[in-house]
Amino acid sequence: MYSGAQISLYPMTDDFVGVIMNALGALDPYRDRLRIETDDISTLLVGPPEVLFPAMRELFSSAARTGVHCVLSATISRGCPGEPDDAMCRSEHFEGPMPPLVERQALALAALGQAPRTDVFSVAQFSLYVMGENRHMDEIYGCIDFLRGSGTFEKAKNFVTKLSGDTGALFATLEQAFCRFGPPEGHVTIDLTVSANSPSAR
Amino acid sequence: MYSGAQISLYPMTDDFVGVIMNALGALDPYRDRLRIETDDISTLLVGPPEVLFPAMRELFSSAARTGVHCVLSATISRGCPGEPDDAMCRSEHFEGPMPPLVERQALALAALGQAPRTDVFSVAQFSLYVMGENRHMDEIYGCIDFLRGSGTFEKAKNFVTKLSGDTGALFATLEQAFCRFGPPEGHVTIDLTVSANSPSAR
Repeated sequence: MYSGAQISLYPMTDDFVGVIMNALGALDPYRDRLRIETDDISTLLVGPPEVLFPAMRELFSSAARTGVHCVLSATISRGCPGEPDDAMCRSEHFEGPMPPLVERQALALAALGQAPRTDVFSVAQFSLYVMGENRHMDEIYGCIDFLRGSGTFEKAKNFVTKLSGDTGALFATLEQAFCRFGPPEGHVTIDLTVSANSPSAR
Repeated sequence: MYSGAQISLYPMTDDFVGVIMNALGALDPYRDRLRIETDDISTLLVGPPEVLFPAMRELFSSAARTGVHCVLSATISRGCPGEPDDAMCRSEHFEGPMPPLVERQALALAALGQAPRTDVFSVAQFSLYVMGENRHMDEIYGCIDFLRGSGTFEKAKNFVTKLSGDTGALFATLEQAFCRFGPPEGHVTIDLTVSANSPSAR
């Protein structure tokens, strides 16, 4: 299994470089469990979901605490057939057989109780893609059912689902969506946008 | 068929609202052929690819011409089984049978000759997802072959392909990737980031 994300942080301020550089310190507790590579358009994080989602949460929360309108955009992927297996990505999420959908929904909801509180309010919008399956919409609709009961569901939109709430709850919900839907060994991706401090009305 | 995008424009400046409001005028020539809805996290554009990609190109180019570091992020989709057919999205791209892959690659390359020049340099990074197919990677690898010959291919990265060049050529290349790979009636999406004026070294 290979899992990770290409992420970018967009602070809407003249001092965007300063906000980004300060926020990067929030990744320090995770650096020994991630491979990190940066170029001019994104930063690659390679590692298991249980490290990846908390790392993104802390990076984004740190930037959002400046009060600046900030967005985190991420392309998150697991099991892409074009990527090599990597011991760094080993995760208990991807071992063993796949329980029935209703059982996975219950496990996902139960896991949300462990989400840390950040006291940073944000909105998130994402699409979950399950590849290589003829019945991919069953998994996607199953995930949307879970989201409706997650406590952070805001609304369904064309192409995406929108969540809002504490940033800790949002990233816990995203991690469950990414890990529990689609086969454990399957090719699953998320196209994610998280936003805080927007001046636009919700 | 239903096709469209959830898009967001991120100008990295204190005056991000001003840059966005000024850039929106670039959508005017396309408004009668698109349905447009905005909330606090993204703007929905519904319409056929031959309107959608030029509209995104003009919006982004307009913002980038300010010289500010700007990013356009988009979730682009066609044929999602959860969306209704819509006459507004009718496109010749999605009619008729699907030619063999090698023929579609040639058609895609030939179409790039029609790309307008914007004189705005940008970099783009994207993933193409083909759903509901057991052999989805054949279409993705076929698309990557096309990209390597497109004139704007910069490099393959984990999870994504990176392009760079004139913004006109980039959006023409993205439109071809979106329309020519995956079945005409299939569920195909692109997770896209386009960036201009970044101070980071490439």
